[in-house]
Formats: sequence, structure tokens, C-alpha cells
Amino acid sequence: METVLTYIDKNRERFLSELFDFIRIPSVSAKTDNGETMQKCALFVRQALLNAGADTAQVLQTNGWPVVYAEKIIDPAKPTVLVYGHYDVQPAEPLELWTTPPFEPEIRDGKIFARGADDDKGQLFMHVKAFEYMVSEGLLPCNVKFIVEGEEEIGSASLEAFCKENAALLKADVILVSDTSMISLASPTLTTGLRGLAYFEVELSGQNRDLHSGLFGGAVLNPCNVLCGVIDKLIDENGRITIPGFYDSVQEVSAEERKQLNSVDFNEKAFFKGIGLENGRGETGYTTIERIGIRPTLDVNGIWGGYTDEGAKTVLPAKAFAKISTRLVPHQTPEQISAKLKSYMQKLIPEGFSVKVEYLHGGTPYVLPFDSKEMEAAVMAMEKSFGKKPLPVRSGGSIPVISVFEKVLGIKAVLMGFGLESDAIHAPDENYPLENFFKGIETIPWFYHFYVK
Amino acid sequence: METVLTYIDKNRERFLSELFDFIRIPSVSAKTDNGETMQKCALFVRQALLNAGADTAQVLQTNGWPVVYAEKIIDPAKPTVLVYGHYDVQPAEPLELWTTPPFEPEIRDGKIFARGADDDKGQLFMHVKAFEYMVSEGLLPCNVKFIVEGEEEIGSASLEAFCKENAALLKADVILVSDTSMISLASPTLTTGLRGLAYFEVELSGQNRDLHSGLFGGAVLNPCNVLCGVIDKLIDENGRITIPGFYDSVQEVSAEERKQLNSVDFNEKAFFKGIGLENGRGETGYTTIERIGIRPTLDVNGIWGGYTDEGAKTVLPAKAFAKISTRLVPHQTPEQISAKLKSYMQKLIPEGFSVKVEYLHGGTPYVLPFDSKEMEAAVMAMEKSFGKKPLPVRSGGSIPVISVFEKVLGIKAVLMGFGLESDAIHAPDENYPLENFFKGIETIPWFYHFYVK
Repeated sequence: METVLTYIDKNRERFLSELFDFIRIPSVSAKTDNGETMQKCALFVRQALLNAGADTAQVLQTNGWPVVYAEKIIDPAKPTVLVYGHYDVQPAEPLELWTTPPFEPEIRDGKIFARGADDDKGQLFMHVKAFEYMVSEGLLPCNVKFIVEGEEEIGSASLEAFCKENAALLKADVILVSDTSMISLASPTLTTGLRGLAYFEVELSGQNRDLHSGLFGGAVLNPCNVLCGVIDKLIDENGRITIPGFYDSVQEVSAEERKQLNSVDFNEKAFFKGIGLENGRGETGYTTIERIGIRPTLDVNGIWGGYTDEGAKTVLPAKAFAKISTRLVPHQTPEQISAKLKSYMQKLIPEGFSVKVEYLHGGTPYVLPFDSKEMEAAVMAMEKSFGKKPLPVRSGGSIPVISVFEKVLGIKAVLMGFGLESDAIHAPDENYPLENFFKGIETIPWFYHFYVK
Repeated sequence: METVLTYIDKNRERFLSELFDFIRIPSVSAKTDNGETMQKCALFVRQALLNAGADTAQVLQTNGWPVVYAEKIIDPAKPTVLVYGHYDVQPAEPLELWTTPPFEPEIRDGKIFARGADDDKGQLFMHVKAFEYMVSEGLLPCNVKFIVEGEEEIGSASLEAFCKENAALLKADVILVSDTSMISLASPTLTTGLRGLAYFEVELSGQNRDLHSGLFGGAVLNPCNVLCGVIDKLIDENGRITIPGFYDSVQEVSAEERKQLNSVDFNEKAFFKGIGLENGRGETGYTTIERIGIRPTLDVNGIWGGYTDEGAKTVLPAKAFAKISTRLVPHQTPEQISAKLKSYMQKLIPEGFSVKVEYLHGGTPYVLPFDSKEMEAAVMAMEKSFGKKPLPVRSGGSIPVISVFEKVLGIKAVLMGFGLESDAIHAPDENYPLENFFKGIETIPWFYHFYVK
């Protein structure tokens, strides 16, 4: 594996050029009319895997966007690593806040700027190129399978059924995923847990039509004002979520693990400065690193109602809407939280109003202990490429499919991510430092090495 | 004036056909790129007034959309009636809630359905046709001037300067306006007062960019959630607005006037049933008719932030926005209220957040006593055409320019409106009953008759 740096050096420009072609396909999974583009992107991934050395690679249909599956079986008696990634990306809106167009990658200050530069096209492509290196140099120590989906950003709705139907095909010993971040290249970390997610759309209705705010204002409740009141009641002044029973299944983390989590080289001041704040605000009694790792949250991801265009319209709207999501921690489940939020919302609205709370998607939280066999291979791989032992962190994000893999395939997933908090994933000017991209390609072959050894 | 019904009968189809041509011009003043259409609409009004018998008619430029001015001077010694109306309309959005396209008028159930059918193209056109009748039959008893603006729905921003610059041109004895509503054809009413308005756009900012709700959620306040909290605090549980000093200048209405206001034939049950509600909700201690007439209000006219498109995006937005307006009563002023809201908003936001409160437009409240000379002519005109004496009401709506006329030209305006609450002005499926349109044309000449007599 020592030749990996030479290989990267030799192929550096080609790797980037191929990645840029991948990024240029605007594979936004949330847009339902995006079928042609999603298919094109899946075919791109299939071809990239064949080019890298897969024996076979196929685009497989699901109930939603297609899945790409590829494999290279060198010896059925050897272990199999299943690499998971996703080719879909978040919507790029608001477009006006991007410095350069989101689907036209550009390198500035040593970083690739584009939607998907990190999440997850950049990180997935590290695996394709690490695989290419191992195959071309004859260093692949075990079998490899790839599963690359197109629905991660919309909750991987079709993947559970796909895994069940294709359990034999996907049979493996461990799953390797790069779709998370680390503290920094100087302080490498490995993600030992992911928060779960439950995402809802709320529609609040008052009177049966939009009204003139002069002729009716004062005589009826305004759904926009009412929605604000309802949302404001969901979190109390201590940052606690008020949904009855919301914390019932939360597993309190031991004092020792909390101490370990708080010992990573996390620069809180820089964390907040990077987003233009002096300091944070959240649940009383927890540190920032705990608030984003081991505690559940509730956020409004979108809100709208009435007239939102240029100028003024004196309308008293009939309806108001919000997208609300909660991040979950072990052992909360989206199903429990969904039932609890729905019944609480019904109680919060005034007489004569109605509310629809639609569960859009979600996922169960996930934990993989730092001392597990799977994690150890990742720890050693990073120690090799970074020159220092990585520390454990919990990610605040969610990859719903990780717990699906565990449930359906019965194997654990290793979350070896190379992103940074500053990569602005899901936001305008998403970026991925070139250094992280190449460090990922360098580290991945070592994981295979130590896992098989 | 007795021949007016015959004249209407003979010209009925032509009146409607001309009105429909007027409505088909989508003169939405809120859209800043609508210049060509606004000019076209002004030219249409100019031609209609010339066709109806004006000596001269001109499209005059202002700092915003143009004003149409026309006149017929039969004898400088006689009184002059200045007719005011507006050719601009509210935006038609949300378009999907219209039964038929907003700018393609259609008659259903004896009503014209279209944006502007009532407000104010339909009501303005009654004056054009009543004027045509009086001129063509040689019955015009005095001088007439028309001023028709294109910015009423966006606060008549240019009209005050226009009136000041053209005070000599606009010299008149009374202003006649049909831009309000009445209880019903069976229970005619005249509007003795209008609420004022102060309309704001609020921009709340937290961190400096959109964040991933998983990686940051729980550690920072969410501007959408914060905006909801701020808005929720603006009105208390008794329906009272909490802005400090908000009620300071409110002139309490006498018990006698409140009794008179509550004596009109207002079917409260039907009022709420028409909008799909069992009953209303508003300020404690006031009836519905008082809440929409003599009490100030605060409404969110629009709210937006984060991801509002299809599907799910797990974003923690950097900003959240709202359009908020208050209806004012004598002697509140938009200037006072603007200052008070701005300073209150600054106090309501959390540390580290910033808020911009932009005053978009507004107007001062207006009152014209029922026993004034100007109002008496309208009372007699309606008594003649309706066969019963109208009752006084206060309108909850605002026509900011009315108090501007009073201030700049020193004359009073008579608000003789023929709309109904059910006309859905400012909303989808705006409509205007044919019966009201023709009753307006019948009544207007009687106003001239009694005013001059």
C-alpha cells in the first residue's frame, strides 16, 4: 500500500477531471421530474466502477431512483467489504448565494466548490479511485462490492426494500462509508454514532380562503400567526423540546463517554466564528459537542404562508406551512416521535383550525463502539495515513440507511468520513478541500489492509 | 335622472364588454417589471374617459406608475366633483386556487369573476359609465374631474407628491370614491371611516449562512424558530397587540357610536360561515363589527424561510422573513407605529441575532361624519336607488390616499362603495355581482343631483 501516494501523484489531474464530470450532473433527488438526470448520473457511476476494475456493474431499478451495484470477487473464501455511497445531492437553492454556479465545479483556495463536492460525490469518488489503485497495482486483499444509491438526501425510501430483495447479492462482512466529517486533518476523528431523523411537513388551515386583511383582520385568527405560536411552543426556554414523551426513550450517555467526547480537539470558538456567531445556544446542561452529538433536536427547515413575493399584499392567508424535523438519538425511533408530534400538534391548535402533519422520511439512530473489530481497522488506517491516532466523535447528522443495513444485512458499518464542518454541505458554496479528497484516497486502501489482516 | 335605468338596459352588453377589456390588462402594481402593462392600462382608462365625454384626458407621469387625469368643465361657477379610483390590482397569486384564470373575466351565478372585478376596476367603471350617461343625456349638473391612479394596492406612494404639484388642476369641492363595500343590496350602507395601514417587511438573521441541520442543529438558534417566537409575542392571549405604546393614540369610540355601529343588519353567523368558520376570534371586549371597524390589528401577511420547495431539505436557514401589517384607527399614524414596532422588534430578538424592519407603505385612518353635507348627498342618492336609507359603517380596509386628499386638497371624500364582503377582493376568485355593478351606475348620477341641489 506504500505506493498509493505515487499513484495519486501520477493520476491527480485525471481523478479531478473525472470527479468534475460526475459533479456536473445535477442529480437532485428531491425534484420529482429529475428522472433523466438521475438515470444519467447512475450510468456515470456504473461506468466509473467498470473503468476502475469492477467485474460487473449494473444500474438496478427500485421504487424510486435507481441503485448502482458493482462487484469484484477475487476469492469467495476471503472477506467482502461493501462500500456504500450516494450519487444524489441536496437541492442547490438558494442559487443567488453561490459564488459560482453549483453544478460547475471550480477550485478556489485549494478547495472544490460545487453541490456534491463533499456530500457525497467527492467522498464516494475517493472509494472509486482507491479501488482503482488497488486493482491496477494488484493489491486488492479481499472482495469488494459497491452499492451507490440515489435517494440518500430524501431519506433512502426505496433502499430497505432493495436490500431485503437483494440480501444475497449484498452479502458482505462490513460496510465502509465515507459520508461524514472529521474535526480536521490535524485532528482526525472517526464517527462512532449518527443521529436519527424524523422529517415532517405541517399544513395549518384556518378559514376556507385567503381574506382581505382590512375587511377581516381582527375578527379571525391568522394561520400564519397561529403557526408561529404553535412552533414557538415546541421548544422551551431551556432549549428542551416540549412534545410530551419526547425524551422517554433517550439513552443517557455515561459520564465517562461524555468526558471522552468532550476531550477531542474541538475549537468551539472557531466553530461558531466560522458561521458568524460569538457563541451557541442550545439545551441547558450540555456542551456544544454534546448538543450536536448525543442530544435530540427540533428545527424548522422551512416555513411559508401568505404573500412572499416582491412588494406588499394585504392578505390574511387561509393556510400556513412548515417543514419541521427532529434529530433523534438512541433509542428514539421516527415512528414514536411521529405519533407524539402529531398528537401534540392537534392539542396546540385553536378551535376551528385543522392541522395535517405528514411524515416525509426519517431514520433510526446508529452507534458503533470504538473498540469493535470493524472500527479498529479504520483507526489503524487513519493512524497510518495521518500519523496520529484518530479520536471518536458522534455525528449530529443522519444517514438513515446505516441502521437499515444493520437490521437487514446484519453487519456493521464503519463511518470513515473525510469532510470538514466548513464544507457547507446542504448549503450554498458547498466545498471539499483537495487535501481531504486525496487523503481519503490514501487512507482507504489501508482500511482494506488492516481489516483483512 | 329617471332615465338612467333605460340607459343601462340599452347599453348593458357594451358596458360589460368594455369592462372586460379593462380587466384583461393584468395591471398588478406590485410587480416592478410591469411597466408596459401599467402604461397600457392607463391609456385604456384615458380612452374610456374620452369616449364617455371628457373634454380632455391625459396620462401623467409620476415617480411611480402613471396617473390618469380627465375633466369636463361645464361652468366654472358650478361645483366640481373629483372622482377617484385606481386601475391597478393586487397580485393574483396563488394562481392555482382560481376557478378560471384571474385576467380572463367570466360570468358565473350572476357575478363577474376576475382580479379587479370589484377592486377597483368594476367600481371605477361604474363612474365612467354614469358619467357617460349624464353627458350623453345632457344631465350633468356640475363639473367633473377624474383622478385614476396605478399605485393604490402598493400604498399610493407617488400620489401625495402628485397632488401637491397638481393642486390647482385637482381643485374640487368633494371627492367621490367607490372602493369600499356595503352590507348587502337589501341593507345598503355607507362607509364613514377607514382604517389606516402600516406595512412592514421583516428580515431576521442568525448565523452567516445556511447550515446542515444535523451537524449544527441543537447548538445554534434557528432563525425560523426565533421568528416564530418573535411573532407569537406580538399579540397576547386577549387579542391585544403587545407593542409598547401601540394603543396610546387610539381614540376610544363613544358608547353611542358603538351602539349605532352594532345596529346595522350584520349577519355575523353568515359572515363567518361564508369563510368556513363557526365563529370569530379577536380582541376581548369588542364585537366582530367593532374588531373590523374601530380597532387596530396586526397580521402576518406573509412568512418565509428555509426550504419551501417539494420534498425535504435538512437545512438550518441563515435567515427568516415576514411581511407584517397593522391596521390603524384614529389617531394612530403609520410613522408612530413604525417607530414603535422597530424598537420592540430589536428588544424581542436574542443576542447575536439581527433584525431589519423595513416600512413598505401605509396610510392614516380617515373619518367622515354621517351628518356632513357631503355624506348627506350620498345618503339621499342611495335612498333614491335602493328605496331605503343606508346605515353608517366603518370599513376595516384602508385607502391611504383618502387622508392624503384631505390633507393636501383640503376637501372631504365620500366613500360610496358597492362591493360586498363576499367579493373576495385581494383573494382568489375575486368577483363582483352584476346587480351591484348596475346598481352603482344607477346610484351615482343621483349623488351629483343631490350634491348640486
